[in-house]
Amino acid sequence: MNVGDREPLIRDPVVVKLVEVWRPVWALSYASSLLGWDARTYMPRKAAPERGVARAELSVLSRRLLLSREVKALLEVAEKRVELLNLYEAGVVRVLRREIDISEKLPEDFVYNFNKLVEEAASVWEQAKAKSDFKMFQPYLEKIVEMARKEAEYLGYEGHPYNALLDLYEEGLRIDDVDNMFNTIIPESKKVLEKVLSEGYYPQKHELERREYDKEKMREANVKILNLLGYPWERARMDVSAHPFTTKIGMYDVRITTWYPEIDGAPRDFKRSLYAVIHEFGHALYELQVDERLAMTPVASANSLGIHESQSRFWENIVGRSMEFTGLIKPILDETIGITKEYTVEELYKYFNIVTPSLIRVEADEVTYNMHIYLRYVIEKKLIEGSLSVSELPQVWNDMMEELLGVRPKNDREGVLQDVHWSLGSIGYFPTYSLGNVVSAQVKAALEKDLGELPDLISRGEEGIVEIKNWLREKIHKYGSTLKPRDIVKRATGEEYNPKYFVEYLYKKYVRR
Amino acid sequence: MNVGDREPLIRDPVVVKLVEVWRPVWALSYASSLLGWDARTYMPRKAAPERGVARAELSVLSRRLLLSREVKALLEVAEKRVELLNLYEAGVVRVLRREIDISEKLPEDFVYNFNKLVEEAASVWEQAKAKSDFKMFQPYLEKIVEMARKEAEYLGYEGHPYNALLDLYEEGLRIDDVDNMFNTIIPESKKVLEKVLSEGYYPQKHELERREYDKEKMREANVKILNLLGYPWERARMDVSAHPFTTKIGMYDVRITTWYPEIDGAPRDFKRSLYAVIHEFGHALYELQVDERLAMTPVASANSLGIHESQSRFWENIVGRSMEFTGLIKPILDETIGITKEYTVEELYKYFNIVTPSLIRVEADEVTYNMHIYLRYVIEKKLIEGSLSVSELPQVWNDMMEELLGVRPKNDREGVLQDVHWSLGSIGYFPTYSLGNVVSAQVKAALEKDLGELPDLISRGEEGIVEIKNWLREKIHKYGSTLKPRDIVKRATGEEYNPKYFVEYLYKKYVRR
Repeated sequence: MNVGDREPLIRDPVVVKLVEVWRPVWALSYASSLLGWDARTYMPRKAAPERGVARAELSVLSRRLLLSREVKALLEVAEKRVELLNLYEAGVVRVLRREIDISEKLPEDFVYNFNKLVEEAASVWEQAKAKSDFKMFQPYLEKIVEMARKEAEYLGYEGHPYNALLDLYEEGLRIDDVDNMFNTIIPESKKVLEKVLSEGYYPQKHELERREYDKEKMREANVKILNLLGYPWERARMDVSAHPFTTKIGMYDVRITTWYPEIDGAPRDFKRSLYAVIHEFGHALYELQVDERLAMTPVASANSLGIHESQSRFWENIVGRSMEFTGLIKPILDETIGITKEYTVEELYKYFNIVTPSLIRVEADEVTYNMHIYLRYVIEKKLIEGSLSVSELPQVWNDMMEELLGVRPKNDREGVLQDVHWSLGSIGYFPTYSLGNVVSAQVKAALEKDLGELPDLISRGEEGIVEIKNWLREKIHKYGSTLKPRDIVKRATGEEYNPKYFVEYLYKKYVRR
Repeated sequence: MNVGDREPLIRDPVVVKLVEVWRPVWALSYASSLLGWDARTYMPRKAAPERGVARAELSVLSRRLLLSREVKALLEVAEKRVELLNLYEAGVVRVLRREIDISEKLPEDFVYNFNKLVEEAASVWEQAKAKSDFKMFQPYLEKIVEMARKEAEYLGYEGHPYNALLDLYEEGLRIDDVDNMFNTIIPESKKVLEKVLSEGYYPQKHELERREYDKEKMREANVKILNLLGYPWERARMDVSAHPFTTKIGMYDVRITTWYPEIDGAPRDFKRSLYAVIHEFGHALYELQVDERLAMTPVASANSLGIHESQSRFWENIVGRSMEFTGLIKPILDETIGITKEYTVEELYKYFNIVTPSLIRVEADEVTYNMHIYLRYVIEKKLIEGSLSVSELPQVWNDMMEELLGVRPKNDREGVLQDVHWSLGSIGYFPTYSLGNVVSAQVKAALEKDLGELPDLISRGEEGIVEIKNWLREKIHKYGSTLKPRDIVKRATGEEYNPKYFVEYLYKKYVRR
């Protein structure tokens, strides 16, 4: 690869050997990532079932290789010399131990049955959502909750079984952390929302939401904005998919997608395409700025959902939805889609920052977003501890929405059936979204301590953006998954998860403008 | 998959079990195909070295699984009950035995060293070709020839060592077959060429070669022509690459590419894009018409290069370059790229059928193409038997070109350095191209015996094309690699490889018009 003459980061002979014998597992995950990306972008429609079989075979193979005697024996040797290892080598040992432990704790037939269940459940969910019929999905969700509880038992936990599931998605995250987070941000978000709604500076809707745009011109705008952000096309791509996502295939192959959603038969509300790009750029940048010397090792990929989301949200909201960034990209939008020409930067900024209580999580703004997550968190915890039954869900969901945001779903499609996560068996995942928001603001505060005010940096254009990127690389990105999420936050910001920065951010932007 | 309620083709319990334990090998080749396709279409530039490592790891893994005790033990059991097996089950046993035997005969370190050599050689060849400097490539080609001779020794052979290499690319093909083929078609092709050149009906160049066209409109034309041919988009794709190719990823995922080559800074000579599409369609159709019940088995893919090429050439030349097909697609070209409007069908037919002695194989017409192959065959055979040294190649090449076609390369780039094959270690591959041409005409004759004259079928448009496709499916395609190439030809045409049909085809089209 391209790592020049720099000293390797992984050089302890035992760890070098360990990475070598583990490399087929890497190759399988490399291939599987491409298969997954392709399935969501270019794969012919009828290829899906066969693709499913291929991926399942590769995943069984990967598990078998990960749990091979050779890998485990070398890992044990490496663990005995952990005091001789540098940070990165120790990271390799830690990550492999965690992966092996999780794989070994979950029996093969349990994993097989769970996968089979969710494959069916995901397709039933899709139909149930289309028909807005929760009853149809209910028996599947009941089984999924039961499996998730069993999963928690297999994995083991201290205190609440939900802790086991949280840890699966965000290493080391516990209910105490999540409670502490929501106890701070939910009441404050409510206050901010009241203030915003009463003041009226930030609109609840905007005429640009209805304006039609040219898809090809918007694609050009997206490319130019990625150029402004320094997206390295020689190592990266942008494609189109039904829902935007980012895939790391390898250190030199990171791909984002965006979308051009249609409303009444035409692409409208261009900010949805734009902010998908900036959000996914944040994810991609994390992977692209991992130290290249970690390529093809177990720590080459950023592995925490929460920290990952903090990076996408940092770029999407904190940078991307600022007045200064709006000023930077307005000329690009003016010369491409053009429909922005008749608006001032401030007016565009308002369109980008519509704040309104809404029913759908993925469309929610910065102020209301975490309430959607909080609702899911409360429900998940109760489901896992058994204090809420699946049949009660629609009622509980709708009541909580009304209490939190003052809006009530008219049907299950815009209520309890809106998200895909549960149908995929992912319980314990949602809190990482709010953790991402909280950490993004904490990162902003730390970055500003070192580099000065973010608005000033952004105003300097490409040069300021490079400074921001360099700071993120040195403080967070370069480690890949060498460090535990908690340790990354501590190292980058000097403190534990601290939700006060997010509250401060909201107040500064929405209350004390 | 989509195989409905039809009885499975593979149902012997031992063979069923064998296919099952072999399935991870299938999954690896499925993944590897996608990695290869992506590398030539969408992969970011800097990803190449890492992609190379991933594919090498998967190939080592695949070899290990293919040669596992489990697969080999079951194969031996299956072989003992071969008289109980149906055609398809016996095909599975035969194909796996052949793959295992070849893998076992070639020592792992030999394969490793050969791969390493050709990886380097391919990149040196590229530079040598750019500089038109054979001396630069010579030491690599010397090593490759040496390795190929060693390969032949490892594989074993009767008679000439080149037989071992021929068999590697076309199971069962021998020097006698190839000599017999060229002894018939080369002298006759020469006669046909003389006649064509003296008569002047088929032009040696055409003004449409220089006409610029709109790339996007040509893409539309290609799509419409594929629609006319009934290309099943729900199982297939068309993309763009530097050189056109076809990949079967799986039974439900077959992908062709085309190109839009530029001359003097603009896309010109649209037939190059068009006939790339029709050629690759022929390859794709073979894979798409394999019996779906063979999906994910060792016989699911057509495995003979020669028979494969017969299908691509059948569609490209015998169907695609006919007057009747020209008539079918002219309206499509008129309404898309438009530059064809001012020409008659016959004039367009002449542009599609330029005949001229030329230096470059891939640009050669039906009449001269096999002379290019014959030259390479003679050289390869001598290199392998040691009666020609690599250093003599440029001289020998140029002399033979002059003798065969009356044209002499001015430099190595348009002479001995033009093809990539040798740099990839592929010696013994070229004859399958001519075999493809010969078999395509043999297939045409057999098809006409059953269905009547091809021109009549083509004139009937989509309905006639469906009849042709159905015949090909039943006679050739549906078997996948169940049968040996030779047996496919016998079954489909009622006789052994017979080059006389190709000669007849040439005479009918070019001499007795």
